[in-house]
Amino acid sequence: MPRLKLLIAYDGTSFRGWQSQKSDDAVQDIIERALRSICKKPVRLHGSGRTDAGVHALGQVAHADVELSLTSIQWTRAINALLPEEIRVLRARYVTESFHARFSAAGKEYRYELWTGEILPPHLCRTVCHYPWPIDLEILKKALSVFVGTHDFAAFSARGTPMPDTSRTIYDITVRSKGPLVRITYKGNGFLYKMVRMLTAAALRVASEREPLSGIREKLQHPHKTRSQHVAAANGLTLVRVLY
Amino acid sequence: MPRLKLLIAYDGTSFRGWQSQKSDDAVQDIIERALRSICKKPVRLHGSGRTDAGVHALGQVAHADVELSLTSIQWTRAINALLPEEIRVLRARYVTESFHARFSAAGKEYRYELWTGEILPPHLCRTVCHYPWPIDLEILKKALSVFVGTHDFAAFSARGTPMPDTSRTIYDITVRSKGPLVRITYKGNGFLYKMVRMLTAAALRVASEREPLSGIREKLQHPHKTRSQHVAAANGLTLVRVLY
Repeated sequence: MPRLKLLIAYDGTSFRGWQSQKSDDAVQDIIERALRSICKKPVRLHGSGRTDAGVHALGQVAHADVELSLTSIQWTRAINALLPEEIRVLRARYVTESFHARFSAAGKEYRYELWTGEILPPHLCRTVCHYPWPIDLEILKKALSVFVGTHDFAAFSARGTPMPDTSRTIYDITVRSKGPLVRITYKGNGFLYKMVRMLTAAALRVASEREPLSGIREKLQHPHKTRSQHVAAANGLTLVRVLY
Repeated sequence: MPRLKLLIAYDGTSFRGWQSQKSDDAVQDIIERALRSICKKPVRLHGSGRTDAGVHALGQVAHADVELSLTSIQWTRAINALLPEEIRVLRARYVTESFHARFSAAGKEYRYELWTGEILPPHLCRTVCHYPWPIDLEILKKALSVFVGTHDFAAFSARGTPMPDTSRTIYDITVRSKGPLVRITYKGNGFLYKMVRMLTAAALRVASEREPLSGIREKLQHPHKTRSQHVAAANGLTLVRVLY
């Protein structure tokens, strides 16, 4: 059966994350419903990975095997016509059967945005986390730089599906600011459950002088001793792209 | 009684416009409720003017007479603590009694944003109007330039509160584009009911070759003969600032 690769964007505010839920209101559920309606039979969608409730995507990737033969533009139009405007298929194209949205992924890029001013502008409140405390950007960069490289990130992952291997490689973390808006971009070969939000929270605590930098180093060196207790809010996180 | 001037921003998607409604769910109602709760008595808020349901503001201005004595920062904190995050008081300061949010206003700046690409990115769907038809930007600028100056805009206003004088002066209209995003900025001494959305719709129809430019000229020259029938969607419109 031909395999279709979808590039998907969503404002995650109103959805229960990416992964299919019993309540049927995850992004995956909603797109699968659209595909079933187009194909007149159940279609299983395979995403590159989960995003949590409230997390957004500019470039989530998924694949599905479909019998129906439509052109790329027909697929995007047909699916988008059945989706709420908070979810859009940006592109659809046929790929070979060797492509798998999850197993072929070589890495991911996430960004976390925060507003350090006292008042969060209303048009940003869905996609930017309000963090109205003074932070030292240089210390933030220094704290984040500790995460770059290959580490066992077990201490910076939430309990969820147990992972046999909690080692991951972060290629690069950049910090950019424009007025009170701060954007942290993470690129790595993969991220554990809630890992980006936990790394962000930990680095912010150091940059706000609530915790010493040594606490981060300690947790990377002894990943199974104490788990980090802080998770940055979901709304500031966006899956920017999946690398293949 | 001391007079307080408020600078207010809102994402208008979920509200019934600015002006107080019987249903009590306009932006004005919500802020008046917060003020009443702080001042322990009813407080009347006077806005610079209405914005329709779904229209946004980056810089709406309103004033209220208040007995309670708080500092500027205390006012913004107290009010914002009682507002939904889609509405924020950006600044509060005391002004003399000669200031009136509506009658002292010398002009307003609005912007209308549209997305001319086939697929509207989800994070823009609340504040940008989807207009997926080819438009000629040079013709759009030309059509909009016809509106600049002092004209009787009766043909470009919706039936609402009857206005004795439908003459207004538009100082400037600019068009900027970045990829498929087009931003039209209007500056003028005042705008009639739905006028910005009707000017936008009329100019877009010319730029999409659905109507000749002469139709616009005709309606400006004979403002009480035929009323324009097209109103651009509310979600693309934002009140940027009120000029005093």
